[in-house]
Amino acid sequence: MFHIQRDSSVPLSEQICREFADRIRTGILANGSRLPSVRELADMLDVSLVTVVQAYRLLEQRGLAKRIHGKGTFVHTTSQPGQGGNNATGTQAYDWQLAVVDYLPRAAVLGIHGRTTSADVPYKLSTASLDPALSSLLFPRDIGQVVQRAMPSLAEYGPVDGLEALRRDVVSYLREFGLTAHPDKILIVNGVQQAIDLAARAFLGPGDVVVVEAPTYPGAIDVFRSRGATIVSIPMDAEGIRLDLLTRQCDQNPPKLVYTMPTFHNPTGIVMSTRRRRQLLELAESCQFLILEDDSFSDCSFMGPPPPPIRSLDKHGHVIYVKGFSKVFAPGCRVAAVSSSGSIHTRLIAAKTVSDLGSPVITQMLVHACLTHPKRRQRVLDIAKAVQRKRDIALEVLSEQAPPGISWTSPQGGYNLWVTLPPHVNTDALLIEALHAGVSFLPGSACYVNENVRHQLRISYAWLDDDALREGVSRLCGVLRSALESTGDHHLPVL
Amino acid sequence: MFHIQRDSSVPLSEQICREFADRIRTGILANGSRLPSVRELADMLDVSLVTVVQAYRLLEQRGLAKRIHGKGTFVHTTSQPGQGGNNATGTQAYDWQLAVVDYLPRAAVLGIHGRTTSADVPYKLSTASLDPALSSLLFPRDIGQVVQRAMPSLAEYGPVDGLEALRRDVVSYLREFGLTAHPDKILIVNGVQQAIDLAARAFLGPGDVVVVEAPTYPGAIDVFRSRGATIVSIPMDAEGIRLDLLTRQCDQNPPKLVYTMPTFHNPTGIVMSTRRRRQLLELAESCQFLILEDDSFSDCSFMGPPPPPIRSLDKHGHVIYVKGFSKVFAPGCRVAAVSSSGSIHTRLIAAKTVSDLGSPVITQMLVHACLTHPKRRQRVLDIAKAVQRKRDIALEVLSEQAPPGISWTSPQGGYNLWVTLPPHVNTDALLIEALHAGVSFLPGSACYVNENVRHQLRISYAWLDDDALREGVSRLCGVLRSALESTGDHHLPVL
Repeated sequence: MFHIQRDSSVPLSEQICREFADRIRTGILANGSRLPSVRELADMLDVSLVTVVQAYRLLEQRGLAKRIHGKGTFVHTTSQPGQGGNNATGTQAYDWQLAVVDYLPRAAVLGIHGRTTSADVPYKLSTASLDPALSSLLFPRDIGQVVQRAMPSLAEYGPVDGLEALRRDVVSYLREFGLTAHPDKILIVNGVQQAIDLAARAFLGPGDVVVVEAPTYPGAIDVFRSRGATIVSIPMDAEGIRLDLLTRQCDQNPPKLVYTMPTFHNPTGIVMSTRRRRQLLELAESCQFLILEDDSFSDCSFMGPPPPPIRSLDKHGHVIYVKGFSKVFAPGCRVAAVSSSGSIHTRLIAAKTVSDLGSPVITQMLVHACLTHPKRRQRVLDIAKAVQRKRDIALEVLSEQAPPGISWTSPQGGYNLWVTLPPHVNTDALLIEALHAGVSFLPGSACYVNENVRHQLRISYAWLDDDALREGVSRLCGVLRSALESTGDHHLPVL
Repeated sequence: MFHIQRDSSVPLSEQICREFADRIRTGILANGSRLPSVRELADMLDVSLVTVVQAYRLLEQRGLAKRIHGKGTFVHTTSQPGQGGNNATGTQAYDWQLAVVDYLPRAAVLGIHGRTTSADVPYKLSTASLDPALSSLLFPRDIGQVVQRAMPSLAEYGPVDGLEALRRDVVSYLREFGLTAHPDKILIVNGVQQAIDLAARAFLGPGDVVVVEAPTYPGAIDVFRSRGATIVSIPMDAEGIRLDLLTRQCDQNPPKLVYTMPTFHNPTGIVMSTRRRRQLLELAESCQFLILEDDSFSDCSFMGPPPPPIRSLDKHGHVIYVKGFSKVFAPGCRVAAVSSSGSIHTRLIAAKTVSDLGSPVITQMLVHACLTHPKRRQRVLDIAKAVQRKRDIALEVLSEQAPPGISWTSPQGGYNLWVTLPPHVNTDALLIEALHAGVSFLPGSACYVNENVRHQLRISYAWLDDDALREGVSRLCGVLRSALESTGDHHLPVL
């Protein structure tokens, strides 16, 4: 049930507290649920009774649980969470379910999505999606007719690896980015998240080492955790993931897979240099690891064409390249394409088959319509230009209104910029205050695996319209200002 | 990489041969690939050199591999497989990939889908889907306009647990089957396959016991294998899964989850009696296991309303109920709904989030349109009646033309009937002959976990139009006749 690391510098009681806290925040543990007894949990996790007592005390201190004398400790929150939640009467009947051990990760993504879909946060700087007013530019005007014509095929399952027409479109599209592929070697999946999941379920298991960039995309952390893999995070510099550290890792405990976002990295916006791309691939060849290359944002460039994908240099099938079509193209369709070679491709198809037998036909047809839209190239450029303007707005407001002691990246593409605050500020705690001000962001802690780094945050600037963006960043600056003025309040690792 | 069972009655060399054979048949191992050296494989699997030599000899005998003196053993097939396949030049460069251990199951489903999508099999009795001419009856005529109106929402990710409108439809629909649910406790997923996968990834891991019916749905076996769970299969009688045997299992090695298809079971068509449903739930309550209730076919009944779902009797949240909308409703949409309670529901949402962040919006809107179609009730009855006529055709041809010594079920709903041949007939081998005659079916072995049962097969009668169905079943009877006449040829466990 819990991921407890005995060799961590974080005390066991703190780790246990955090695991519960994640589950309470995401609603997996409903308000009113009884927590296991101290003895039960100590036995279950093979820790001392004192450790559990301390963990429960931490939960109480953080306003997430309450001890009722003679009855036990119960989830008890006042403000509360995204998803559903049981009513008081229903809860008791399901108490037995708490004993059902599960294999879920901390579900950080769930928490994020749960929070940001609530209507009472008008200034969502947490949503790394495109302003709907822009993304509809790519839909053909007669989209209804596209579907009407496609009706007969709605009555059949599509091929497991995707519609041939779409696989051909993808090949043409990737050629524009310098990547040559064959339609037979393209696999269509439900968004980048599923692509990461398929690669992980095919190739990662307990004991396997997977390397991620630090920071990285939270949804990937969740997937790798769910496979029981050992996640090693390697810091980045201005050119991307640090290969000196990765090489050392290869010497000591070689990874099976390296997950990277070389172009407009999420959350930092960094672009991996062409040289670094080449070196990373050479390292993969000599140490025989797989590279999972996540390309969600390369179509939204403010710098002209970004460096070619690592996959375009790949001769021996080391790269699993994922092109997401949920960022610039249709998010509601949840379509991504995977390019890989040899048996890696076939094994990913097997994983896709086991997962869901293939993607829906209709969403593939809609993405096909977007990719073959006669004005597609121009429209994509228009969208990138509009997003660049949004980035400029965010940068402008930050430079005018952010308090001193704060720095941020200036991305050359994509939807995200990365803000670093003084080390004593805890952005998990800040988020609660920001939400009160109607603003959301992604707290940096979600992007780290084990590191206790809590003084960063991600701003996504592509979702709001220009005026709302200006207001949102401005409000966020206000929250930052009061946080820095009242220094000391945010020392505690409050949840 | 391989699932080798040391305590099995099947010799190790035979097990190794089968594992390779599955991978060759499904294209995971491409024609021309070099197999590991005898020593490498012996080390990898911790078996003797002789065992590997025997396994490779079996592969050669079955026409799947070739030993080239001084070079090694290579995949070598003449007829061949469904998916892609490398060209000869490409293969060598990817040889290193063979050393990449994976966590895939045998991918039986892949094999099946690969085979049945080929255009040279005009009489597919293997496809458990609805005749497209029938399923389009449920689409609103103005479906294009439905999509056109929905265009703005295509620009956004939907909620992780599904569109509220669809969750409400599902609740009304389930009420017609005697099941009361709340929209907040419905989770929309990509078809039943994904629902099984989510339940497994949330609750099953190595060492956990999952019980399946014998025979069962092959796609479920693949999922449970991919989780490393211990799969125990329990035979069925006319009322469904045998509870005397399940009770004994609970005493000895209690399951964590029991996967069942109580209504128009796939592949047999059996309906679990109401009494048995109640008893199974009581057993779940006393042994505290979860029931995964797969309901793909209850809307296609030839017997009036089938018994109410087990979930309708569930008071304490033991049942994860899955309603598939890919059989009678739109297969190309790949939508299913899950009803569960308490933290089980929330944990399934977490698993869905990690898998793909939520189902596409547009497919959910289309299923919404189907469910709220003003003539939906009548049309569903019309479809069931048309499928019943197809079942009658299949039964009629079988009783007229099947050779003696063969028996079959007479299902009261659903798309499948189950044929039992004399025990010495191997339907895996028969399938090859059937394909030559232009007919496909599902060989029974795909529906069993470990049992060496090969004398059964599944006929799916809903896919072909009436004339093709008649011809297909007739041709199959011809294949069966010659098989029984040349008894002895099919003794060998040919692949």
